[in-house]
Amino acid sequence: MPILLQVLDLGGTFVFAISGAMVAVRHRLDIFGVLVLAFAAGNAGGITRDLMIGAVPPAAIADLKYAGVSALAGLITFFWYPMTNRLRNDVLWLDAVGLAFFAVAGAQKALAHGIDPVMAALLGMVTGIGGGMLRDVLVSGIPTVLRADLYALAALAGAGVVVSAHLLHLSPMLAAVAGGGVCFALRFMAIRHGWHLPTSRPAPASGAPHHRHHDQDR
Amino acid sequence: MPILLQVLDLGGTFVFAISGAMVAVRHRLDIFGVLVLAFAAGNAGGITRDLMIGAVPPAAIADLKYAGVSALAGLITFFWYPMTNRLRNDVLWLDAVGLAFFAVAGAQKALAHGIDPVMAALLGMVTGIGGGMLRDVLVSGIPTVLRADLYALAALAGAGVVVSAHLLHLSPMLAAVAGGGVCFALRFMAIRHGWHLPTSRPAPASGAPHHRHHDQDR
Amino acid sequence: MPILLQVLDLGGTFVFAISGAMVAVRHRLDIFGVLVLAFAAGNAGGITRDLMIGAVPPAAIADLKYAGVSALAGLITFFWYPMTNRLRNDVLWLDAVGLAFFAVAGAQKALAHGIDPVMAALLGMVTGIGGGMLRDVLVSGIPTVLRADLYALAALAGAGVVVSAHLLHLSPMLAAVAGGGVCFALRFMAIRHGWHLPTSRPAPASGAPHHRHHDQDR
Repeated sequence: MPILLQVLDLGGTFVFAISGAMVAVRHRLDIFGVLVLAFAAGNAGGITRDLMIGAVPPAAIADLKYAGVSALAGLITFFWYPMTNRLRNDVLWLDAVGLAFFAVAGAQKALAHGIDPVMAALLGMVTGIGGGMLRDVLVSGIPTVLRADLYALAALAGAGVVVSAHLLHLSPMLAAVAGGGVCFALRFMAIRHGWHLPTSRPAPASGAPHHRHHDQDR
Repeated sequence: MPILLQVLDLGGTFVFAISGAMVAVRHRLDIFGVLVLAFAAGNAGGITRDLMIGAVPPAAIADLKYAGVSALAGLITFFWYPMTNRLRNDVLWLDAVGLAFFAVAGAQKALAHGIDPVMAALLGMVTGIGGGMLRDVLVSGIPTVLRADLYALAALAGAGVVVSAHLLHLSPMLAAVAGGGVCFALRFMAIRHGWHLPTSRPAPASGAPHHRHHDQDR
Repeated sequence: MPILLQVLDLGGTFVFAISGAMVAVRHRLDIFGVLVLAFAAGNAGGITRDLMIGAVPPAAIADLKYAGVSALAGLITFFWYPMTNRLRNDVLWLDAVGLAFFAVAGAQKALAHGIDPVMAALLGMVTGIGGGMLRDVLVSGIPTVLRADLYALAALAGAGVVVSAHLLHLSPMLAAVAGGGVCFALRFMAIRHGWHLPTSRPAPASGAPHHRHHDQDR
């Protein structure tokens, strides 16, 4: 079981480190900046989860494999960027796999630390979206994970399946497969069919929303 | 006393979750993005405080009421946005109430964990401004709490009153009322009368400051 | 040895607090916003390190000297901004000194907490670049520490020297001087001679990278 957890965690780290490195290359950071952003994107979700559940030092700090996997992903992306970029659509699927890995691993680790089941599902979601959020904040964008089709919801659904299976005393391996499958399937269908959740309608008078928010709360 | 603390903490969470959800709606996030930003804005200050004082897992993770209150605030804002928006001025007052709640709760919790009084006052301020800072960073703005009239100072003043009352062995309830009152009054007067603190004068030669800061430290 | 560590830590805090305050003044924050950004820039690196290694509450919270030094730096910058600004090139050197202080202090503190040597070097780097990253994120910029010439690499090199000296059982004082010297020298040469690391070549078709990243991962 700890082995399953670590495989999922490291797999998610690798995939998100690639996404972080790709964003860094696009913003013309040098090779070291690429490695830093790869590590940040690959590990911010897991580190946040570990700090929240009191697992200190976080796995990404205590265990060198996380830094190693992140560096590997960063170097691959840096040296073969045109190729990675051409595979961008495949990367989208890969990213959905990483999301599924992290959602499952996050929920299982939180449960193992005695966190309340509902909160464990939310922490699974945080593990899945944390890396992407930091990645986008560092390059000054609104996090795509807050906008992309069913992104955070898919992570929560997968983590929820893991938690439900835990409450039903099913095997962790089965829970991981089912939860990961649900997360991946939801995200896959959202990408393929453009599924998305409703947005609210801001009041008509509010004009250009992006340029006014600095003043809204003053 | 723990009950007083929790009421203040949850009240602050509700108010700031609404402010986070409103910003999310304005940026056209979907319903799930609205819920995530509501949780982030409502709980980032308290989570930061709890990590700093070693109260792990943070209350917002250990106790489902925080997530519940945040979700409620997010849903209300999402479904009745035009109404919430029309009440924007009232929301400003409400926000000042939330700031007062958080400043008081943050300082009292830090004191209860044996933090040095001066630092407890600063942690009260952090509790009050943390959620708004994360909210604005996530949508790529300069945090309004760093710009708005007397915002952070009001939080520090309220927290300072709580700490002073603690040093004088006054009742926590009295301290909460006095500290919260000071924070709210300062912020209220600042909004109503446009009170603000002085800014420094950058050197004339520095030109358009907003467009040059990327290069300043290179 | 703890005294050496604290002198380095407080020196780094002072220097980075000045850099945070200068950015705040340029963005026309009021005096309180300047103080908040001074504290954030001066202490985010050290707080992150302390949370990662489980040193809770972080030194910057447990010990008032950090807040005091940050406030002093903020006030000096606020009231003498034109002068500080005219000394900007000197500030660049000063910033390199702060980076060296933090890289050394971060690595030594991590080692003292039993962190794996390789990770201790990485935490030294994080201590050095964390404050500048938060500073730039708060004012909506891409962190200069991710772009500036050899910035993060210099921090890692300095921290690596400290860790190597530790493994060779050399004196901590000698390690600090050597590691700090390496970090400062690398950064100094990079500034003076425009040394920089290679960047990757994004695929030609990718057009204007800065305007497309919101959509990349959807």
